Amino acid sequence: MFENKVPRTELSSLGEFGLIDHIAKSIHLTGERVLKGIGDDAAVIEHGGATMVISKDLLIEGVHFDLAFHPLKHLGFKAVAVNVSDLCAMNATATEILVGVAISNRFSLEAVEELYEGMQLACQKYNVNIVGGDTTSSRSGLMISITVLGTATKEQICYRTGAAVNDLICVTGDLGAAYMGLQILEREKRIFLESPNVQPNLSGNDYILERQLKPEARVDQIKKLAELGVKPTSMIDISDGLASELMHLCKNSQVGAVIYESKLPIDGQTYERAREFGIDPTVAAVNGGEDYELLFTLQQQDYEKIRPHADVSIIGYITEVDKGIKLMDKSDNEVVLKAQGWNHF
Amino acid sequence: MFENKVPRTELSSLGEFGLIDHIAKSIHLTGERVLKGIGDDAAVIEHGGATMVISKDLLIEGVHFDLAFHPLKHLGFKAVAVNVSDLCAMNATATEILVGVAISNRFSLEAVEELYEGMQLACQKYNVNIVGGDTTSSRSGLMISITVLGTATKEQICYRTGAAVNDLICVTGDLGAAYMGLQILEREKRIFLESPNVQPNLSGNDYILERQLKPEARVDQIKKLAELGVKPTSMIDISDGLASELMHLCKNSQVGAVIYESKLPIDGQTYERAREFGIDPTVAAVNGGEDYELLFTLQQQDYEKIRPHADVSIIGYITEVDKGIKLMDKSDNEVVLKAQGWNHF
Repeated sequence: MFENKVPRTELSSLGEFGLIDHIAKSIHLTGERVLKGIGDDAAVIEHGGATMVISKDLLIEGVHFDLAFHPLKHLGFKAVAVNVSDLCAMNATATEILVGVAISNRFSLEAVEELYEGMQLACQKYNVNIVGGDTTSSRSGLMISITVLGTATKEQICYRTGAAVNDLICVTGDLGAAYMGLQILEREKRIFLESPNVQPNLSGNDYILERQLKPEARVDQIKKLAELGVKPTSMIDISDGLASELMHLCKNSQVGAVIYESKLPIDGQTYERAREFGIDPTVAAVNGGEDYELLFTLQQQDYEKIRPHADVSIIGYITEVDKGIKLMDKSDNEVVLKAQGWNHF
Repeated sequence: MFENKVPRTELSSLGEFGLIDHIAKSIHLTGERVLKGIGDDAAVIEHGGATMVISKDLLIEGVHFDLAFHPLKHLGFKAVAVNVSDLCAMNATATEILVGVAISNRFSLEAVEELYEGMQLACQKYNVNIVGGDTTSSRSGLMISITVLGTATKEQICYRTGAAVNDLICVTGDLGAAYMGLQILEREKRIFLESPNVQPNLSGNDYILERQLKPEARVDQIKKLAELGVKPTSMIDISDGLASELMHLCKNSQVGAVIYESKLPIDGQTYERAREFGIDPTVAAVNGGEDYELLFTLQQQDYEKIRPHADVSIIGYITEVDKGIKLMDKSDNEVVLKAQGWNHF
């Protein structure tokens, strides 16, 4: 009705990260409350003498989840967990969330209850209160928008900007499992659509399915690091894949990195399923997203402290920025890392 | 694929408010940080010895706005303004926002820029920083989720629960204009769809169109009340219509109310257009939403302080709960008020 005749640049030509960068550049901060604005896992605000950490994430049906195989209760849990994970990545403790849900009349009250039940389970687990939000209808589909608030002292907070040359690169847990879980679910969905009477065959895949459907925020790891007296020099959570997140860390810290294929933590089930699917397990670990593990860097002097910690793998070290970001494969060949990330446009 | 065989209750049988009530009942708070959870315009949290006020709103294409007549720049402005308005309703000052945008590839980069330009205009106007958010793709349509943070001392904050018998009921600005603006826009859209070559005829409707397309948060009124040394006993912003909001105030404060048709502030343009459309101007004022004016109650003793304030109308008073919620019409007939609200399900 009032269409503008302006040039048209397709969003797909920028991708999601390009779009976020583009928007971030146009935003300027005023005043002194904001210690960190756009450009990390969460914003950091000084409020009444204390530091507050805050983040928000959107989960959109058909983009971030598929209700053909995502039970609503699991989805509710996941929606909270991925937000709490953002605060873990800041070395902060989540305290409250606000929940926005837009839902169409295709859903029943019972479905909404399941979704909230999952959210409340996660809130209990992570000791977080639901303090508000917005519930409204949508024309079609389900959209979940969660805002998470948390606390940390100014000294505790880890940014993406603090990695320095020679720092150790560490990762919690194992990688690629959520991605392989997704492959299984998508395979079973295809079979179901072709032959609705065939029961889905998910047995023997419990671990990787749970990693996809009900990921955990690594609050335990944040606590463990504090116990060990270790503070990461930089940190990020792995939502879009190791390569993509490592590139964020390096870009923000103005450094390069080398990681070793042989050091990547990959669970046996991930490895086996990847082989069956004809996927290189390393590719699943490096580019598969949604593991919600923590990627962080440590000063070399913390090596002895972190070594006995079974759930952290040291996978490489930080280099000068002009060395780029490299993977040393098992045959000692240097491969330039490329982030596949998630360009949904 | 994994469908549950559970009973199905349609969301339309509860409506949006019913659904929110239902969800709120299942949510329990722990700890001492949360001074107010779900059930007001914003949540109130004690953080580091200071009080923080936080709220979030979703705006969904096809439900809350129609891009046939909502220019993206105005929409961006509105998205921020309605959130700032929620903080006004708490007698708090907005300080930061987080912006979540889910957008499909039907939009261009230029369209996204327009949207953010509008948001930034509003942020400048209300002295608010954009500190973070999430930008992602959607399968179709545009969804905006804004979280707003703000400050207020514990003593300043106004809840929906404080209205007492004999308090004056006040409203800022005028009512029904945004609703009549919407009628004009929808009429012109219908004409456009039938005859795309006919230019939309919007002249003479500037005020009501702006009220619909680019509403303002009444930050000015909050400041004015402070200057006058007046603190509302309860307050809410008018997003869903006067009747609906008055019912929220009364329900939360456990009181009744009488308002007078003759006292309702209605702009001349609203009045004229309502007559032309065959709509009772009182109905537009009482049930038309999206004015984003403030509805509040005051102690009788503040009457002399508020009387010289031109932009506040005293429209009635609070009664005992068993008197119900009434409108006295111009012929002195008592009408029981019904909220139409917005049930999109």
